[in-house]
Amino acid sequence: MNLQDIAKIREVNPVVVNYANFVTPFLVANGLNAVGASPIMSDEVSEAEELVQLASAVVINAGTSRKESWPLMNKLCEAANQYQKPLVLDPVAVGATQYRKALNLMLLEKYHFDVIRGNIGEIAVLAGIDWQTRGIDAGNGTGDMSAVVQACAQKFNNVVIASGEVDYISDGQQVITVHNNTKLLPAIVGSGDLLSSIVGAFSAVAENTLNAAVTASLVLSCAGERAAAQLDQQNRPGSFLSYLLDELANITPEQVQDLMKIGEA
Amino acid sequence: MNLQDIAKIREVNPVVVNYANFVTPFLVANGLNAVGASPIMSDEVSEAEELVQLASAVVINAGTSRKESWPLMNKLCEAANQYQKPLVLDPVAVGATQYRKALNLMLLEKYHFDVIRGNIGEIAVLAGIDWQTRGIDAGNGTGDMSAVVQACAQKFNNVVIASGEVDYISDGQQVITVHNNTKLLPAIVGSGDLLSSIVGAFSAVAENTLNAAVTASLVLSCAGERAAAQLDQQNRPGSFLSYLLDELANITPEQVQDLMKIGEA
Amino acid sequence: MNLQDIAKIREVNPVVVNYANFVTPFLVANGLNAVGASPIMSDEVSEAEELVQLASAVVINAGTSRKESWPLMNKLCEAANQYQKPLVLDPVAVGATQYRKALNLMLLEKYHFDVIRGNIGEIAVLAGIDWQTRGIDAGNGTGDMSAVVQACAQKFNNVVIASGEVDYISDGQQVITVHNNTKLLPAIVGSGDLLSSIVGAFSAVAENTLNAAVTASLVLSCAGERAAAQLDQQNRPGSFLSYLLDELANITPEQVQDLMKIGEA
Repeated sequence: MNLQDIAKIREVNPVVVNYANFVTPFLVANGLNAVGASPIMSDEVSEAEELVQLASAVVINAGTSRKESWPLMNKLCEAANQYQKPLVLDPVAVGATQYRKALNLMLLEKYHFDVIRGNIGEIAVLAGIDWQTRGIDAGNGTGDMSAVVQACAQKFNNVVIASGEVDYISDGQQVITVHNNTKLLPAIVGSGDLLSSIVGAFSAVAENTLNAAVTASLVLSCAGERAAAQLDQQNRPGSFLSYLLDELANITPEQVQDLMKIGEA
Repeated sequence: MNLQDIAKIREVNPVVVNYANFVTPFLVANGLNAVGASPIMSDEVSEAEELVQLASAVVINAGTSRKESWPLMNKLCEAANQYQKPLVLDPVAVGATQYRKALNLMLLEKYHFDVIRGNIGEIAVLAGIDWQTRGIDAGNGTGDMSAVVQACAQKFNNVVIASGEVDYISDGQQVITVHNNTKLLPAIVGSGDLLSSIVGAFSAVAENTLNAAVTASLVLSCAGERAAAQLDQQNRPGSFLSYLLDELANITPEQVQDLMKIGEA
Repeated sequence: MNLQDIAKIREVNPVVVNYANFVTPFLVANGLNAVGASPIMSDEVSEAEELVQLASAVVINAGTSRKESWPLMNKLCEAANQYQKPLVLDPVAVGATQYRKALNLMLLEKYHFDVIRGNIGEIAVLAGIDWQTRGIDAGNGTGDMSAVVQACAQKFNNVVIASGEVDYISDGQQVITVHNNTKLLPAIVGSGDLLSSIVGAFSAVAENTLNAAVTASLVLSCAGERAAAQLDQQNRPGSFLSYLLDELANITPEQVQDLMKIGEA
């Protein structure tokens, strides 16, 4: 990765168009703003192409989509591919229902997504690998996470992030692991959605997609560690949420450099 | 009530499906997560039945529903009754418009709701009792709140909570009052919505519905008291919101035991 | 302006109906509540007229509207004009797409809006004045902001607020400037949406619309200054958000009197 991209985002202020769920958009918008990107959301198909043209990245969060929004999602993805804007998919709870599975697989079949970001349970569903999950959580699978992520990236010819206690990130060849974390990040509903959108922001400035994914993962997890440190690691998700936005607004390449724990799997 | 259910939720992590309004879902989702439940929201009728099947409780918040969502609400309620999952109604501002009244009464006629949670003004409307309210607030009625709540519970053959300075909770026979409170809870838009969803979570683990309602009311109001104590009772709703989530994530049966003030009306 | 309106809102608790975007309604609702107003949101056209009748002001935020919601927006505006309730428009990102431009100009042609609140880039688009902007931000125009705001107010025969480092407020004749600010307010996605809704609240109690706009601008910017002072002006948007709500709930006419820096342009 190139940690100088953390500074670059604050210069360029890339516009990130989000097809958002209706639960977490405030966190996603403010988190994007904090790292230096400019978020925009929309619910109207007829403006989708223009939004993508002015944007530097497009993020599709399928968390609470309804069938009436499929034309909008299709248009955003089509335009992202057409205008060569990085396209990110967050397959929220894809294992929970047939509808979610059909929607995500339809999108992945019709469009090229540069990045998929989910928990290991969601990534396993997309990869077609059996995994113990209730559909909405990471589940208790004990398989080789590295192999799951790599298989998914190979299947969709892209970069895949399975975020969790350790983030597994693969372009189908390499598997890079990010070991920075805090128990408070998964305690926040929407921290995964935010990571997906931050990946979009870094895709707009990074040299390549794998770099963008690793840097984004480091930025969120190191900001999380710094926020948790202010709380002496106490389990206080409400205060953590405030401090996380504080840290995202200030985190520097040097701070990430000092904290980061990455490996290869 | 059985305060050990506070510990049980953290073991079981019951999935609570929320038909949410679009104003407060982030608070509701993070509040549910903090007490140990797993929230999921949806805006698509074709996945409703599957979501209910994997869930342990279903909560309908009619705060910003549109007519196009009636099929989704109907399907969630129908499936909750069919699969015997606890079903909770939050009749937000039911007295404000004919549309809201028609929607809530339609739902209550077609399905059995295990719990209704509203302010006293909303409960009075459902019970068919005259009460001074602008439709969106508790109003200034000076009647016997205990009788209103009991009448509503008898009418719908369920458990009813009128939350406010004192929470009145009835199964149609008993009326239990919870006197724990802080002025900061009603100062938060969405604290009532959150209570409704926490009732759903406790319904999934409690021995009976009345117990679930009382425990949920105690958990939110005692967590609120603890959060307000950190602020020396100052009127600081923004800081309170953070501390409330902190306290919800840590509250123990023992802490509630020490603080609780309940009575019978 | 009349700073005693700050106290008056807390007595009257005016109901403000918001056609909200789906990104920031939680902030808007809690911010309105903090200043002493009662927020209500809706997504259903058939209750629009009743909601306007019980309300004291109506605010249209066009930030994430879809075509299916045009009947609802039309009905809210029509009823606001019919029942002479103050009507406020927030033309979010009006310069970004043809759809947004068409929507906002349609609304402005069919209904009389008492106030338009946007950033200078958005106001310039409505005024028909060339301005450098990507469509979603204030842009880098170097023209005479005062003239832009005045021209917009003359065109639509109302009061216009261009909020930013300095807020420019005009009724088409006078241009009043509010110089209170902090860099943290624009760092929050939704602070502009909140200002638009607070303007609605003050319109419900102020002697005239220009007064309402100036008082609202002062309340938000002075509360922002007080919140930032608690953070020693550090760039901590998450903590600022909490403190901003705290300050909005407590700000007094005297505090605003002490801090305010207004001028005429």
